[in-house]
Amino acid sequence: MLTQEGCLKRRARLWAALPDSVEWVLISNPRHVKYFSNIWVNPVSFSAGQSVWLHMERSGKVTALADNFTLKSLSGEAYVDETISEVWYDGKNSVDNRDYKQATALKKHFGILDFSSGAIEGDSLPVAALETVTGDCDVNIKLGDVIKFLRRKKEADEVAHLRTCMEVCEAGHRAALDFVRPGVTEMAVYRNVHAAVLEQAGRPCVVYGDFRATNAYLPKAGGLPVDYTLQEGDLYILDYSVILDGYRSDFTNTIAVGEPSDDQRALMNACIASLEAGEKALKAEVACKTIFDICSDTMIQKGFEALPSHAGHGLGLEHPEPPAIVSESTDTLLVGDVVTLEPGNYIQGIGGVRIERNYQITETGSENLSHHKIALQ
Amino acid sequence: MLTQEGCLKRRARLWAALPDSVEWVLISNPRHVKYFSNIWVNPVSFSAGQSVWLHMERSGKVTALADNFTLKSLSGEAYVDETISEVWYDGKNSVDNRDYKQATALKKHFGILDFSSGAIEGDSLPVAALETVTGDCDVNIKLGDVIKFLRRKKEADEVAHLRTCMEVCEAGHRAALDFVRPGVTEMAVYRNVHAAVLEQAGRPCVVYGDFRATNAYLPKAGGLPVDYTLQEGDLYILDYSVILDGYRSDFTNTIAVGEPSDDQRALMNACIASLEAGEKALKAEVACKTIFDICSDTMIQKGFEALPSHAGHGLGLEHPEPPAIVSESTDTLLVGDVVTLEPGNYIQGIGGVRIERNYQITETGSENLSHHKIALQ
Repeated sequence: MLTQEGCLKRRARLWAALPDSVEWVLISNPRHVKYFSNIWVNPVSFSAGQSVWLHMERSGKVTALADNFTLKSLSGEAYVDETISEVWYDGKNSVDNRDYKQATALKKHFGILDFSSGAIEGDSLPVAALETVTGDCDVNIKLGDVIKFLRRKKEADEVAHLRTCMEVCEAGHRAALDFVRPGVTEMAVYRNVHAAVLEQAGRPCVVYGDFRATNAYLPKAGGLPVDYTLQEGDLYILDYSVILDGYRSDFTNTIAVGEPSDDQRALMNACIASLEAGEKALKAEVACKTIFDICSDTMIQKGFEALPSHAGHGLGLEHPEPPAIVSESTDTLLVGDVVTLEPGNYIQGIGGVRIERNYQITETGSENLSHHKIALQ
Repeated sequence: MLTQEGCLKRRARLWAALPDSVEWVLISNPRHVKYFSNIWVNPVSFSAGQSVWLHMERSGKVTALADNFTLKSLSGEAYVDETISEVWYDGKNSVDNRDYKQATALKKHFGILDFSSGAIEGDSLPVAALETVTGDCDVNIKLGDVIKFLRRKKEADEVAHLRTCMEVCEAGHRAALDFVRPGVTEMAVYRNVHAAVLEQAGRPCVVYGDFRATNAYLPKAGGLPVDYTLQEGDLYILDYSVILDGYRSDFTNTIAVGEPSDDQRALMNACIASLEAGEKALKAEVACKTIFDICSDTMIQKGFEALPSHAGHGLGLEHPEPPAIVSESTDTLLVGDVVTLEPGNYIQGIGGVRIERNYQITETGSENLSHHKIALQ
């Protein structure tokens, strides 16, 4: 859960980043509603896909706008000054279109908003909201972009929450190391990991990622499990995330199905060397391209090809988030970034190996946030 | 999964429902994108929360608009003529704001759209899309409302898919009947149901609903499990849904924790009588208020209070959907409606009981789509 203190800090950073002429903002991207108020419509609920908007004023006041039914499905406390709820469904009367209710609440409560003193998220605010706005609708004010950049610096409450996601994710990795063996299906591994996650989390959550076997003939495979039974000699890449209230973990281990070959061990060792080299270089103000090159060059030094995809990426409310730790990256690491490093290689005749840890970037280096066992067995 | 044939039928019904002057529509509500094209961004994926838009022409052509990364996370085949994909993340370069990509794709491919010959979903289309539109932006054309009404009549592919959701949901109910006993926690029941659902479904899905115990002192409780251990004499209301590709089941049983009391049995029998009475009356053209009254009056005849909440509601891509089977309903049952009936009562000194089945409405009556065991033990 985010804290009220954290929400206040993030709002202060937003106002500091916006021109003084902006006196109000309308937040409609669900991730940003969470970011500033802790309001998150639980995707494991009957209101999955519905949204709440925030009207935030520079003076400090924050108002949530929603339909009454969606408000039943929030996960956690709402840090707002007021909630304007339009009745959609009361269990007694027929319903009309729920998706206009936020705009109706906005109009009733605030009347006509003067656009010249405010800003909207043009990438998510529905057109219906414009009924309540006067003045030039300048869709070039990219409020969403401003907030997405702010999101890179994770505050203490966000990191604490990410740690919870990671502890839960670690439980699934432990379960998989015990469970993966010849004869079980990819889906059975998913079920096993999911059960361990639910037990550790103590509440429903979303579990997604790569739950696929690779091998000498199919060295690259990703995504949710398919109808395949693990065979001796396969390498099972478990690269998965646990989402709790929008925030997520994202780390990887590769598990040998049966006894790994010497080539498979060598590939795992190269990935470990690549991860450790990249890890040592993580520090604020370092170019992400440099981190990529270090990870990739280490793979080459260990006798394998350059990294075929990214070396890592930012992590938080979205997957992936900036910064991109890639070959042509123009990003630079910042204090507060939470990133993943995930070197991997996928080789005909051997199979695929990828490993991954999550880190927070500090002024002097990084802190490892994920503590699962990285090992073929 | 929806079928191409079903998508074509639904599009034909949309065009028939719109004025001839409307030559194109822009679909942005994710449920409606699914409805017309089978495109569904899997919520159990790294693209959860991202969206794809559809540009549909009266001539028949359908174009999907998306960022390249979201297209990796579709569950099932896309029935469109063309997909315009804007590169957001390629694993080699830094990223910008993903949430403008559909609007960018729209503008590049279609140039400026003439609003006087088209319609948008004002309740979901982001303001950013207006850059590509000229002419009066009449937010009173409520395309979303038109489609929401069309959704009431479920086509054969939708019903086939709903049956799959229901078979999966039945597996969870069977598991719960075996598992619920004094000493297990509400969360353990959720875990047990979830495991049975995953095994039956053979793929990841979303499991939400009411997983709560009630009793003589707390006869009404709903929502996801809390930290509570079931006690002898409790009544566990399992009212839950399985979502596969946006469509969902929704049915209920109430399970006695230990041996039920005579009062609890009487309450269950009253609910069964209420359900059966309502069920017999289900038929196209019957007023939903009539169905409510029949269910509620039966509860009274059996010696209990009138229904304290709805008797049921529509079911499909949303929860709830019209029609509302409530005391003041102005809705009438239509051929093709899929509805739930869920009489329940929550009584101090006894506890809460609710049961529920799902039906499709036909011209002559209804067909029961859910086949779980309704019983206290």
